[in-house]
Amino acid sequence: MKHVILDCDPGHDDALALFMAMGDPDIDLMEVTTVGGNQSLEKVTKNALSLIELVGGKVPVYSGAPTPLVKAPKWAGYIHGESGLDGVKLAPPKSEVAGTHAASQIVKTVMDSPDQYVTLITTAPLTNIALAALMEPKICSRVKEIVMMLGAVHTGNVTPVAEFNAYTDPEAAKVVFERKWPITMIGLDVTHQAICTKGVQKKLAEANPSLKEVLDGLINFFRESYKDEECFPDPPTHDPCAVAYALDPSVVKTVKCPVSVETKGDLTCGMTVADLRALAPKDCNTQVGLSLDVEKFWSMVEKDIANLRAGK
Amino acid sequence: MKHVILDCDPGHDDALALFMAMGDPDIDLMEVTTVGGNQSLEKVTKNALSLIELVGGKVPVYSGAPTPLVKAPKWAGYIHGESGLDGVKLAPPKSEVAGTHAASQIVKTVMDSPDQYVTLITTAPLTNIALAALMEPKICSRVKEIVMMLGAVHTGNVTPVAEFNAYTDPEAAKVVFERKWPITMIGLDVTHQAICTKGVQKKLAEANPSLKEVLDGLINFFRESYKDEECFPDPPTHDPCAVAYALDPSVVKTVKCPVSVETKGDLTCGMTVADLRALAPKDCNTQVGLSLDVEKFWSMVEKDIANLRAGK
Amino acid sequence: MKHVILDCDPGHDDALALFMAMGDPDIDLMEVTTVGGNQSLEKVTKNALSLIELVGGKVPVYSGAPTPLVKAPKWAGYIHGESGLDGVKLAPPKSEVAGTHAASQIVKTVMDSPDQYVTLITTAPLTNIALAALMEPKICSRVKEIVMMLGAVHTGNVTPVAEFNAYTDPEAAKVVFERKWPITMIGLDVTHQAICTKGVQKKLAEANPSLKEVLDGLINFFRESYKDEECFPDPPTHDPCAVAYALDPSVVKTVKCPVSVETKGDLTCGMTVADLRALAPKDCNTQVGLSLDVEKFWSMVEKDIANLRAGK
Amino acid sequence: MKHVILDCDPGHDDALALFMAMGDPDIDLMEVTTVGGNQSLEKVTKNALSLIELVGGKVPVYSGAPTPLVKAPKWAGYIHGESGLDGVKLAPPKSEVAGTHAASQIVKTVMDSPDQYVTLITTAPLTNIALAALMEPKICSRVKEIVMMLGAVHTGNVTPVAEFNAYTDPEAAKVVFERKWPITMIGLDVTHQAICTKGVQKKLAEANPSLKEVLDGLINFFRESYKDEECFPDPPTHDPCAVAYALDPSVVKTVKCPVSVETKGDLTCGMTVADLRALAPKDCNTQVGLSLDVEKFWSMVEKDIANLRAGK
Repeated sequence: MKHVILDCDPGHDDALALFMAMGDPDIDLMEVTTVGGNQSLEKVTKNALSLIELVGGKVPVYSGAPTPLVKAPKWAGYIHGESGLDGVKLAPPKSEVAGTHAASQIVKTVMDSPDQYVTLITTAPLTNIALAALMEPKICSRVKEIVMMLGAVHTGNVTPVAEFNAYTDPEAAKVVFERKWPITMIGLDVTHQAICTKGVQKKLAEANPSLKEVLDGLINFFRESYKDEECFPDPPTHDPCAVAYALDPSVVKTVKCPVSVETKGDLTCGMTVADLRALAPKDCNTQVGLSLDVEKFWSMVEKDIANLRAGK
Repeated sequence: MKHVILDCDPGHDDALALFMAMGDPDIDLMEVTTVGGNQSLEKVTKNALSLIELVGGKVPVYSGAPTPLVKAPKWAGYIHGESGLDGVKLAPPKSEVAGTHAASQIVKTVMDSPDQYVTLITTAPLTNIALAALMEPKICSRVKEIVMMLGAVHTGNVTPVAEFNAYTDPEAAKVVFERKWPITMIGLDVTHQAICTKGVQKKLAEANPSLKEVLDGLINFFRESYKDEECFPDPPTHDPCAVAYALDPSVVKTVKCPVSVETKGDLTCGMTVADLRALAPKDCNTQVGLSLDVEKFWSMVEKDIANLRAGK
Repeated sequence: MKHVILDCDPGHDDALALFMAMGDPDIDLMEVTTVGGNQSLEKVTKNALSLIELVGGKVPVYSGAPTPLVKAPKWAGYIHGESGLDGVKLAPPKSEVAGTHAASQIVKTVMDSPDQYVTLITTAPLTNIALAALMEPKICSRVKEIVMMLGAVHTGNVTPVAEFNAYTDPEAAKVVFERKWPITMIGLDVTHQAICTKGVQKKLAEANPSLKEVLDGLINFFRESYKDEECFPDPPTHDPCAVAYALDPSVVKTVKCPVSVETKGDLTCGMTVADLRALAPKDCNTQVGLSLDVEKFWSMVEKDIANLRAGK
Repeated sequence: MKHVILDCDPGHDDALALFMAMGDPDIDLMEVTTVGGNQSLEKVTKNALSLIELVGGKVPVYSGAPTPLVKAPKWAGYIHGESGLDGVKLAPPKSEVAGTHAASQIVKTVMDSPDQYVTLITTAPLTNIALAALMEPKICSRVKEIVMMLGAVHTGNVTPVAEFNAYTDPEAAKVVFERKWPITMIGLDVTHQAICTKGVQKKLAEANPSLKEVLDGLINFFRESYKDEECFPDPPTHDPCAVAYALDPSVVKTVKCPVSVETKGDLTCGMTVADLRALAPKDCNTQVGLSLDVEKFWSMVEKDIANLRAGK
């Protein structure tokens, strides 16, 4: 059983990650924390609450940083639409966020839990996680591991070499990567293989007919965004890859290597610089994903979605 | 009456700032917060507690960030010695820090106080203040003003153009300067005029014979550091200038101008870039000190020190 | 007698510098070289030829770099107008530039002249000079000195801390400042004191009635530019300050200090970082001007202009 | 027939590139130009002369830039040894370099040749080429193409993401890549496949017994360097890949994509940023090599070496 804090910014692919985390019997989803990223903090927090209610979940939601640590915010409305979840109409949430700042809550949960108990899964810019580590450095030795959808070893998306989550708050990413916790970076090398073709989409909807309308709405919108903005025929569903890896590491091929984050650079700001040279030290606390077992991945997503039911 | 939170890293000149803040009848010193800077967080926190006890003060102390937001820490042992207060032997503190992180406490104090009640005086890197503003953006409109010893308009100290507090945590300084609170930057242009000659030192000691040994110990050590490391015949006592300005703005000549902080640059990282061009907008929330009324300044320090008595 | 190569980009104030260099009996103006700066290479070269012909001069002109070494070009049409010399109608030049690239010619002239013979006066971005030093490093020990209108110790013009010539080609400035030739930087600290009031303008025109129309045209346009773009009531005439210093160093108060050029930095790119700290080494090959003997300066300009006559 | 200027810094793998260029019947080697890189300009120029004499060549050699454009030089003695060609004792050259600077000569040769006549092959930092393009922009439309051993799309050698030639003079690389000539970048993605195993080495030596001692000396030293410094069991022979591509483009798989050079960045300075995103424009003047037809490559090298004979 994984005891998980999911830090996210839903976001179409965050929605799928959240569905997996709620649907999978091996995940104890302790809390969901939100951060400005795919859209503003207010919007993604509302989305998180609505998505949880949609499937009858009872997970507390804490909202965190409205802006990156240092850099000016720039949300991804061009991919996720005005609401952050365009393409589907969710009921406005009845529940509310808890009063504590997400970073404070992460600190509290980690410090109150047994050592090596909490797994952090992040599918958003790392602002909340960096703030938590800055406010209480002790969490870095108590967290079991961090699995993050973030970064790219080879090819970026918002720039030729930077991925959106890392690019949006590079200083936060730098803070997180410089701490000595076990980090698995699931970046675009992996997630650009998690292509949601129409065939995949059909299977997901069939797995849970009560969610069909929502899933189709989300995926169809995401497909159009990726066609128009990134020249992809079908959309890569990034975020569930991190959840899948946390559940079953064999679904991603990884390699241990040092990773640092470029925070300067005219062309490279936000790049996750993985040292894949033969000469690089291999005994490090960071590893990066290089490829995905695509078939196994989608069957995991399918199974978890089947476990959910649209709430009433 | 000024209701003050003093964020500091004692530090020889912080000690004088702290003495002023405790001795002055127009300051209600609500709390002292500490941050890694002149020495490690642990050392400067111990120093703050000892200094307060020395003069029989009852101010609560909260320790905050052990490291800068993003940059690697580099303390100023070459100026302040191994202990951060070399040159004087203070009794180890009997009191302890309160349990809350300095940044959380700043947030709490500001949010729990009336609007426009709290004045922040900072004599250290701005890590705590930046964290507070990141954790609760609302404080930025509730704080009455920030008066900071930090930066330089013209000539730096740790680099040709950067001052130590700004250089040590440039990202924090950038975060603070980008918020819209009223900021007065008391930088080296001012504090390099606050030279503690032997004549000044004599008067300070005479003002409070019970503190003579401590004052002489501190100032003599500081003088030697500045001789050896910065080619100054007598030391500039930076931090009390910020307290003096908060008490009586007429002691510093200031000018309104935009200020930004360089966080990149090979030669300029940590520079506080003040726009003094004729074309610069003047209706901004930042102002910088340009010179000091030296005589008035020292008479203020003298009077405040006279008000203290070495605790027993 | 100074044997001078004048590297310039006329430009209104370059015109005055060129007039001084041609009018002064103590200057042997060996050649004029041009570089893109105040306007495109083509325009400033045409301007140089026209200005020389206007006063019956016989100096050869060599055109050099059309663009900065590395940075994208951005000319100063907002100050100098479309032609680079707006406000006056000069006859199109009858003469032509010599065939050699300015940088090659500078190399040739310096290497063919006796050691320590040539003084370089520059009133433009340093692209040509950097190229010359890169193509033939030996010139750096053979040149007698470089006097440059460039940079600022304290306050910039195109940015809060960078002056136009340095900002336009910071890499070239870096190359030049890193070589060990004797450099005197006459920056904005000096030239912003060389204000051409209407009283000064009147005297200059009276000094040479044959040039009155041209001088008035140039200065009036320059005044309007500086009013509109830089909030100056009267224009600072930068470039002749460098010629004046080369002729009589007592006209500028200088200080020896290390100078480096920032080529990175978000806010500081192109800044000439002069190390004025007490601890800075004083035995360096660079010095910077800090202030101007205004009266002496204008009387020098007046005298040199009086020596010219408008050619027919 | 390719009419080639080879700009190089021999260097063990440059030696093989030079042998190919001299041995191949389809290359008219017009001139060799040298630049500081693998070792100092003086050493690599001597090496070029000696290598040419060794095989009885008659190619003129022009030496160029002793240092990078802007960055401080840092030669690769740790790979190529003190001489730049350690492992073999070559006779000191009898011939001398021609008097012209390499960059001036490149300009002259290109401008004096028919349009689209000259192919530039570079196996060194691009300082000479950048200087040539800066001194005479017209060469950029007259050169047929540039094939360069430089850069890396994915993994660097001197840093995690930067290759030596690009890293040594990033500003020069930026200058060259910003011009609109047809550029093929043969980087580490290709050259790390050109592994000189002992089996390959044996065949090369057998192809030309008169060169066996020299080839074995060079390759054995190179193998040890790569073992010790880069953890490679056998050395990658970078530079001949560029010559091979110029002769037969089918030996390298390439893709058209925009390439820019990072000149800032804490971790990424000198990185050749190739935009391989689906959304990147494909109609650009740059292409990058992605992989090598290893067998064809070595058979080309073998054949060209067989054509040479050690001169007497």
